[in-house]
Amino acid sequence: MKLYISLLGFGKVGRQFVKLVRAKEQDILNWHGIEPKFASVSSSRGYVANPDGLDIDVLAGMAIREQNLAEHPDFVPYGAKDKMDGILPEVAGKDCIKVLVAAASSDFETGEPTLSIMKSAISRGWNIASMEKSPLVVAFDELTEMARKFGVELRYSGATAAGLPTIDIAKISLAGSKVMAIEGILNATTNYVLTLMSEDGISYEEALSMARAHGYAEPDPTRDVMGIDTACKILLIANAAMGCRKKLSDVKITGITHITPRDVASWAIEQRTLKMIGRAWREDDDVKIEVSPMAVPYYDMFAKVNGSGKAVRFVTDLFGELVVTVQEGGPVAAAGSGFKDVINIFRSFQGRI
Amino acid sequence: MKLYISLLGFGKVGRQFVKLVRAKEQDILNWHGIEPKFASVSSSRGYVANPDGLDIDVLAGMAIREQNLAEHPDFVPYGAKDKMDGILPEVAGKDCIKVLVAAASSDFETGEPTLSIMKSAISRGWNIASMEKSPLVVAFDELTEMARKFGVELRYSGATAAGLPTIDIAKISLAGSKVMAIEGILNATTNYVLTLMSEDGISYEEALSMARAHGYAEPDPTRDVMGIDTACKILLIANAAMGCRKKLSDVKITGITHITPRDVASWAIEQRTLKMIGRAWREDDDVKIEVSPMAVPYYDMFAKVNGSGKAVRFVTDLFGELVVTVQEGGPVAAAGSGFKDVINIFRSFQGRI
Repeated sequence: MKLYISLLGFGKVGRQFVKLVRAKEQDILNWHGIEPKFASVSSSRGYVANPDGLDIDVLAGMAIREQNLAEHPDFVPYGAKDKMDGILPEVAGKDCIKVLVAAASSDFETGEPTLSIMKSAISRGWNIASMEKSPLVVAFDELTEMARKFGVELRYSGATAAGLPTIDIAKISLAGSKVMAIEGILNATTNYVLTLMSEDGISYEEALSMARAHGYAEPDPTRDVMGIDTACKILLIANAAMGCRKKLSDVKITGITHITPRDVASWAIEQRTLKMIGRAWREDDDVKIEVSPMAVPYYDMFAKVNGSGKAVRFVTDLFGELVVTVQEGGPVAAAGSGFKDVINIFRSFQGRI
Repeated sequence: MKLYISLLGFGKVGRQFVKLVRAKEQDILNWHGIEPKFASVSSSRGYVANPDGLDIDVLAGMAIREQNLAEHPDFVPYGAKDKMDGILPEVAGKDCIKVLVAAASSDFETGEPTLSIMKSAISRGWNIASMEKSPLVVAFDELTEMARKFGVELRYSGATAAGLPTIDIAKISLAGSKVMAIEGILNATTNYVLTLMSEDGISYEEALSMARAHGYAEPDPTRDVMGIDTACKILLIANAAMGCRKKLSDVKITGITHITPRDVASWAIEQRTLKMIGRAWREDDDVKIEVSPMAVPYYDMFAKVNGSGKAVRFVTDLFGELVVTVQEGGPVAAAGSGFKDVINIFRSFQGRI
């Protein structure tokens, strides 16, 4: 059965996603019987589309050369015709599964422009694999309800710590369990900075500029170091795993910008290391969510999660404490997690996973 | 939609499974719309069955009191009529999902009597959630092929390290990834024994009798300490995650019975701790599988997995190293993993997970 992808965003992660689909084309045909086609690829300025599938070699070549989407011979700037019709073309044949893969950047307060595109997509029968957090944080209930109504899937591994399988674990591996609490090291920038401060005894500012130099911090890392990125992730994970419907405004957030080498050193004397932790726990029939740097004892698994590593701990009634860690981050893991969601959407429609 | 369960085995794990279904009845109705019924429960000597569902309170009461199944008022000894018809009754109504939950003990060499019951079940349209390793190790290819032919699912989380989500991770979270290698601490008895030897400096024999006293070793722990239990688990995990079709005879196995306090002490000087490791890796277009005690450096996550804890590491192309650990073992985790498989079988037939 054919799989049509509409890829939103042709930046680092979007390009990596194209390269991944190209590189794994034969594998996913052999393993899962999936024949992927790109129905469209769009950027902030326009799109390329073909209801029979774009030439994937052309796209992969552009991705490898880090070309701008506007350099594609069939690029159509927005405004020429209806934007949604361009991004979400009517694909050929009924016997197919359609997935919008969201890898663009969107406004943090409004989730736009992606949120509107997601809504259009769902109402046209496209499933969603989102690597973007903002639209989900802004409108999770609305998107979930729309997906239910239109019979499509909404997956977002790429928005919830990428290579770290948070949502899969919560929904599949912990089916039937009650999750009592969740803790996570969910943001690579802050973990990288705190690791450098611990290992090298340097200041926050020095560590942050090293993180920037090594590509572990965005040019503007405000949302990372203030704890907002971690808050978005623990919020989405808690809502999925603990059956709550919390908002970002319910999360108490403390960043790492005030941490001094003296703090780090005095915790080290007590055999503890500072980690940026997002956590959610049950209290009086409610769920509380908090983000702050915490001093983790050396004997704890979390103390071993250094650099750009990530980790999550689920405390459950049936399996006790389940801890998952992953070392790899960056665009490959982000694109890989979107790729995984696309495959699992396909498989779940095909019948059984 | 109704869910009919045929439970094979009313020992520690079987009883725990019944208690779990009873305790979670309301939750799984609320969370997943599942109404579970026990169509039958069977032991080595006979069964109780009701095509409309057995009284679950009676079963749960017997489980709590650790009663023998033969004490059930409707107990039918084998021989009175066809055994398979008793264990696998024709359940009422077509709109239902049927799952055989295997929690009996079976012969290690032949997988019997469970293997024959599993085959009958599959040919009658029952899905399988197995907490037993032997039938799968003996006849994995045959069971997989039959399940495909009859359109049923074969799940076995409870046979592959229970609370540690090995197969889920391999099939769902690593969809699209290539697994290059797998390592696991998969057997509670050997990990408990090696932990005691490391922490208390005692001999293998002393540690084993303490493990027995604390319920972490069977009366006959031969298959655990010889590495065979670990071999069965890493075999099933490797076959699922690496696309190979290895047999138990392909696994090179070394036990822990020869380990001395002197070995433990000399590794400690090198900042290493002995762990019983099952591992599988790709070599020359083939997969190699081996089980042996290995000296793990203190900085490794695996060094922190003590007592009855378990862990698995997947080395993948897209996400680097993914490590999962779990502390809880025993009948609750075993029954919980079967319970999880039953829920996921139900959900996957219902449409989408």
